[in-house]
Amino acid sequence: MSIQPVELNKAYRLLQVGPTTMISAKNDGIENVMAAAWVGLVGNNKVMAFIGPQAFTRRLVEKSGYYVVQIPVVKQMEMVLYAGGHSYSDTPDKNSKIPLFYQEEFDLPLVEGCAGWLVCKVIPNVENEKQHNLFMGEIVGAWSDDRVFRNGHWIFDDAPDELRTVHYVAGGQFYAIGKGTKFNYGPGKD
Amino acid sequence: MSIQPVELNKAYRLLQVGPTTMISAKNDGIENVMAAAWVGLVGNNKVMAFIGPQAFTRRLVEKSGYYVVQIPVVKQMEMVLYAGGHSYSDTPDKNSKIPLFYQEEFDLPLVEGCAGWLVCKVIPNVENEKQHNLFMGEIVGAWSDDRVFRNGHWIFDDAPDELRTVHYVAGGQFYAIGKGTKFNYGPGKD
Repeated sequence: MSIQPVELNKAYRLLQVGPTTMISAKNDGIENVMAAAWVGLVGNNKVMAFIGPQAFTRRLVEKSGYYVVQIPVVKQMEMVLYAGGHSYSDTPDKNSKIPLFYQEEFDLPLVEGCAGWLVCKVIPNVENEKQHNLFMGEIVGAWSDDRVFRNGHWIFDDAPDELRTVHYVAGGQFYAIGKGTKFNYGPGKD
Repeated sequence: MSIQPVELNKAYRLLQVGPTTMISAKNDGIENVMAAAWVGLVGNNKVMAFIGPQAFTRRLVEKSGYYVVQIPVVKQMEMVLYAGGHSYSDTPDKNSKIPLFYQEEFDLPLVEGCAGWLVCKVIPNVENEKQHNLFMGEIVGAWSDDRVFRNGHWIFDDAPDELRTVHYVAGGQFYAIGKGTKFNYGPGKD
């Protein structure tokens, strides 16, 4: 296994399968991580993340202008639920249960063991942020675990099931990504 | 099988598993349907859809103020790829290959055979629409195929595999949603 950079023009594909994510951020030496199911794509180079007003991570994003969207996998699902159920505001040692690491180019914490990571630079928009809790970000860095995402494609079929992406429903219920199929497809834009 | 209304405060869960979608719209008697992988949630009652400037469907959304996000399934994947590869502008008989139906409450075409449908009423925002091709919509109606979504939850495990949601990667490659797991989970917001 190794963590490889993803070409920026294909990084959107990490999110296009619709996984549940975690958002991390850092400001003034303080790191935090939250669970996030409401993260979408804005075309092939931008991300839109819903970060509610009660989220401690939101302050770090507002101050630093950056956030990381990462894609946890089946073996991390308990950690995702833990992150989603606890706030740094009430549980300041929250992050001791969420192992973090850094890449050289960015002073931003990444969650260990995920399948992919996207660094997003906030494109400020007061109305979206204040009225709708939406933070748009340009994708400025990306990496993947090359066992499951390489050459711009997810390739789950020959990897352990515990590395599959997770897709949250509600109340602790989730689905892993499943069986792959490939159509011969001529005219597409991808 | 029957198509059942979904409680509006749980309809977001149709999209929370991150499926590839189709967007339909209608104006002045003209119907159209497009494939859409860039549709996300804005909290638990709103949707954000990327609809590019070249999409014929966009004109229908702009004029009518409504769109429908629907969730196709494995058996429909060729139709989704067909919809994504052809524009109404060049192929005016495009919709003859995409069977549509109507519910009583809304004059909006729904694609037959999907697992879920969400009617979205556009919340106008000129900057998002013009600069970012984003159309925010409030969820004002929703239905599901009760074989796979009922009581506010996806339940794929006892349904045919061909009714699983699809999650597009690129170039004709997609994954179906896979195995479900349920954690005992106390403190969550869901």
